[in-house]
Amino acid sequence: MDFNTELKNRIERTEGIITKYLPKEEGYGGRVTEAMNYSFMAGGKRIRPMLMIETHILCGGDGRLIAPFMAAIEMIHTYSLVHDDLPAMDGDELRRGKPSAWKQYDEAMAVLAGDGLLNYAAETALMAFDLAEDELDTTFVAEAMKLLFYHSGINGMIGGQCADVEAGKSPDVSPEQLIYIYKNKTAALIRASMDIGALLGGVDDDTLIAIDRAAYNIGIAFQIQDDILDVTSTEEELGKPIGSDDKNNKTTYVTVNGLDASAAEVERLSNEALDILKGFEVRNEFLEELVSSLIGRKA
Amino acid sequence: MDFNTELKNRIERTEGIITKYLPKEEGYGGRVTEAMNYSFMAGGKRIRPMLMIETHILCGGDGRLIAPFMAAIEMIHTYSLVHDDLPAMDGDELRRGKPSAWKQYDEAMAVLAGDGLLNYAAETALMAFDLAEDELDTTFVAEAMKLLFYHSGINGMIGGQCADVEAGKSPDVSPEQLIYIYKNKTAALIRASMDIGALLGGVDDDTLIAIDRAAYNIGIAFQIQDDILDVTSTEEELGKPIGSDDKNNKTTYVTVNGLDASAAEVERLSNEALDILKGFEVRNEFLEELVSSLIGRKA
Repeated sequence: MDFNTELKNRIERTEGIITKYLPKEEGYGGRVTEAMNYSFMAGGKRIRPMLMIETHILCGGDGRLIAPFMAAIEMIHTYSLVHDDLPAMDGDELRRGKPSAWKQYDEAMAVLAGDGLLNYAAETALMAFDLAEDELDTTFVAEAMKLLFYHSGINGMIGGQCADVEAGKSPDVSPEQLIYIYKNKTAALIRASMDIGALLGGVDDDTLIAIDRAAYNIGIAFQIQDDILDVTSTEEELGKPIGSDDKNNKTTYVTVNGLDASAAEVERLSNEALDILKGFEVRNEFLEELVSSLIGRKA
Repeated sequence: MDFNTELKNRIERTEGIITKYLPKEEGYGGRVTEAMNYSFMAGGKRIRPMLMIETHILCGGDGRLIAPFMAAIEMIHTYSLVHDDLPAMDGDELRRGKPSAWKQYDEAMAVLAGDGLLNYAAETALMAFDLAEDELDTTFVAEAMKLLFYHSGINGMIGGQCADVEAGKSPDVSPEQLIYIYKNKTAALIRASMDIGALLGGVDDDTLIAIDRAAYNIGIAFQIQDDILDVTSTEEELGKPIGSDDKNNKTTYVTVNGLDASAAEVERLSNEALDILKGFEVRNEFLEELVSSLIGRKA
């Protein structure tokens, strides 16, 4: 089977797992649940839950505890988009070709839907305790929750969002600040995904550290590749306007380091990540191809 | 010692416990943490963590696991105020006499600060696992987290917020919808507070159900009393404009049932709650006085 057919199959399988956790739309508070589910089902490639389960498979996991975490990380990713699209933030009216949550509902409901998704991510992850069969499982679930909320919070995604908002107001963005933003806004949830997959696979500490390193590289490379595509891609390939960074005078890895050095850094980060993933006795070739496609992507 | 002096002491003691959990303001994402801490420290009577610890004491708890949950519930209460004050929601420029978060910072930072507080509430509650001394403790912490996020989510506070927003757009609010809003917007976090206090005190199921009943009554009575004060109090006593419900054509328990029936319902709910709290072998008289003051309050 070729990679794209396999990818389509695995996205469908992932959707099948995570959509089981969507809340029911009922009662006088049903509209916020409707807005949450609307945003969750608006599409997307389910990259984070897919990276989680594929890393879990690579690490020899049996999948017993992981499903709630796959749903939870996608809820967290979705809430960040719902709040990011608000007029108070980016003010985007479209998300994946559909009206963003605040356009489809209203601003108040989009604020509440984002809150609801983050809160429900906690409720969903907590369901993993009911799947635990012994004390060791319980410890794994608690540790996985710590990873999830550490990387999604002020020391991760939210910290990155904040730094990004601050950078947008400033004419000077230092290279350190730029890497801080990439590390936290983009790489943090990738790290949470792959780290949780590995942790629940029962790996030792050294392996967990190696997977975390690979995830960090993938996250940073993904973001730099995004900057490169904004300069080199066409609107047809990318499916969204190109040159927007230049138009907005945005400091990116490419504006700081140039195209060649950026491409070389993507290459270096990817090779290091793939070397780690290829170092396992039983390899997961789909995961390797997924990572390559994420980083080497045309769109 | 009279109640007000004792209250002041216990508020200070509660602040001492919960402020230990505030995150450090550091790094490029430090501004969101600053906005979180600004909102958390803007005052307030710390009613929820106080109800939690006092219920815990009533139930014979030793306080070993409760501190992170006291901080977490106050973070959740604070985030709900930060988002509620946003122009997209109520648009309040003042909160306890100080600029609300979006006025002090900006709207983007207030959205992120609210998200950051909710996320950090999860991180804080998870710290309780590190305090667990055995398997039973671990189970208690997981169950307490389930209570916390159930009552703060779509089946609790967020559901109530949603119904309240919807009610604000409608000329007709049914009595059932009104009670739904009171139950979820106000009573849910009171229930989470007292239920967690009791659970971590190691009570049996019947006692937990009784405490939950008391908490529900206190939450509803508190909200009806709020409606009564909006009609009967003076601006000096209340410290905020009176008659606002009438001016906004807001449906309240008082507009539906009248002042006398409202006062009688507060009386009935309070008596039932206090009877439950007084039914313990070793009583917590401060908790009884606290509840009485919350419900019978002039402001």
